[in-house]
Amino acid sequence: MSAEASEPGTVRPGGRTARTRAAVREATLAELARHGYQGLTVENVAARSGVHKTTVYRRWGNAEGLIADALDLAAEEPWPVPDTGSAESDLRELARLVHGGFTDPELGPASSAFVAAAVHDRAAAAALHAFFARRQRDAAVIVTRAVERGELPSGTDAAEVVRTAVAPLYYRLFISGEPVDRDVADRAGSAAFAAARAGVFSRRDDA
Amino acid sequence: MSAEASEPGTVRPGGRTARTRAAVREATLAELARHGYQGLTVENVAARSGVHKTTVYRRWGNAEGLIADALDLAAEEPWPVPDTGSAESDLRELARLVHGGFTDPELGPASSAFVAAAVHDRAAAAALHAFFARRQRDAAVIVTRAVERGELPSGTDAAEVVRTAVAPLYYRLFISGEPVDRDVADRAGSAAFAAARAGVFSRRDDA
Repeated sequence: MSAEASEPGTVRPGGRTARTRAAVREATLAELARHGYQGLTVENVAARSGVHKTTVYRRWGNAEGLIADALDLAAEEPWPVPDTGSAESDLRELARLVHGGFTDPELGPASSAFVAAAVHDRAAAAALHAFFARRQRDAAVIVTRAVERGELPSGTDAAEVVRTAVAPLYYRLFISGEPVDRDVADRAGSAAFAAARAGVFSRRDDA
Repeated sequence: MSAEASEPGTVRPGGRTARTRAAVREATLAELARHGYQGLTVENVAARSGVHKTTVYRRWGNAEGLIADALDLAAEEPWPVPDTGSAESDLRELARLVHGGFTDPELGPASSAFVAAAVHDRAAAAALHAFFARRQRDAAVIVTRAVERGELPSGTDAAEVVRTAVAPLYYRLFISGEPVDRDVADRAGSAAFAAARAGVFSRRDDA
């Protein structure tokens, strides 16, 4: 995706505008919310977005291409990295954001579809992995601030703390098939904090 | 699946033997190791197992049915719940078993295929969830022993400790697409132990 194409309102001769891309993405999310991953088709997205079917086929290829592009756009969006003044609260809030993303009636089906698509399609997987890399980088500031405040040991591996705070939610949702609620999110955030505080995620340069 | 049918060597008139079931399962795992989930077909499993194609279709239906039955059999198998004398070591060893299950050249592709199938198929998902419920129950003894030894607070939620010890591995493998190695496994096990020791997984009956 060129930087030019992702500027809102940019028009390239013979190319699509960012507005087209946004319309297709909106339609993709709406179709996922209604029909799920297995019901996502280029035809339905074209019809809903008002973009011609041949354009959607040419640019996005198939359902997985639509999902990958929706993820690319999602990765660029700002999101509210928690900043409550306490690392444990921040990590609990972070886990609650994940919980919210999967239980929200609008967002939930799309979020689940992203993971389902990634299991089967290389392009969707690459987009999903880039999305998580970006989110983990964004959230690292939670740990940076905690180290500055003296709540966590210096040298704490921020990405590992973030992974630990969210992993139990994904495990329940996609592996063990167990329910997720705010208590589960809070425990996951607190567990990541307790482990970090105990030094489990401290980088040992002399190891 | 009747108990009778799962006894090795049992023959029911007009029915299949446990030997047939085992042969089909072996062939399923071998086909998954060679071709992955998307390449698994009833035809190939029938050819490899020596069981007639119409029998495989009638009994297992499709690729997801083959996967669900292989998982049912796997759930019944004994496995070495770690018992090292220390809860932290046990939990690290548990996470290493997960790591081994996905990186082993024979087992790895089948393990990944189980998760992929569960994302798309209800029967495979039910089998996967039952498999994990069983594994979590089996592993709970790690926490029971740790409480008896005074390593962990009484009232610690064993299943939650076990989930926390393994979740980061599944998160990396199926969500963020990041590498997994023994260090990752050891950190996950130690993190679960540290959080449990700090009381994060203590059931609060008065809450």
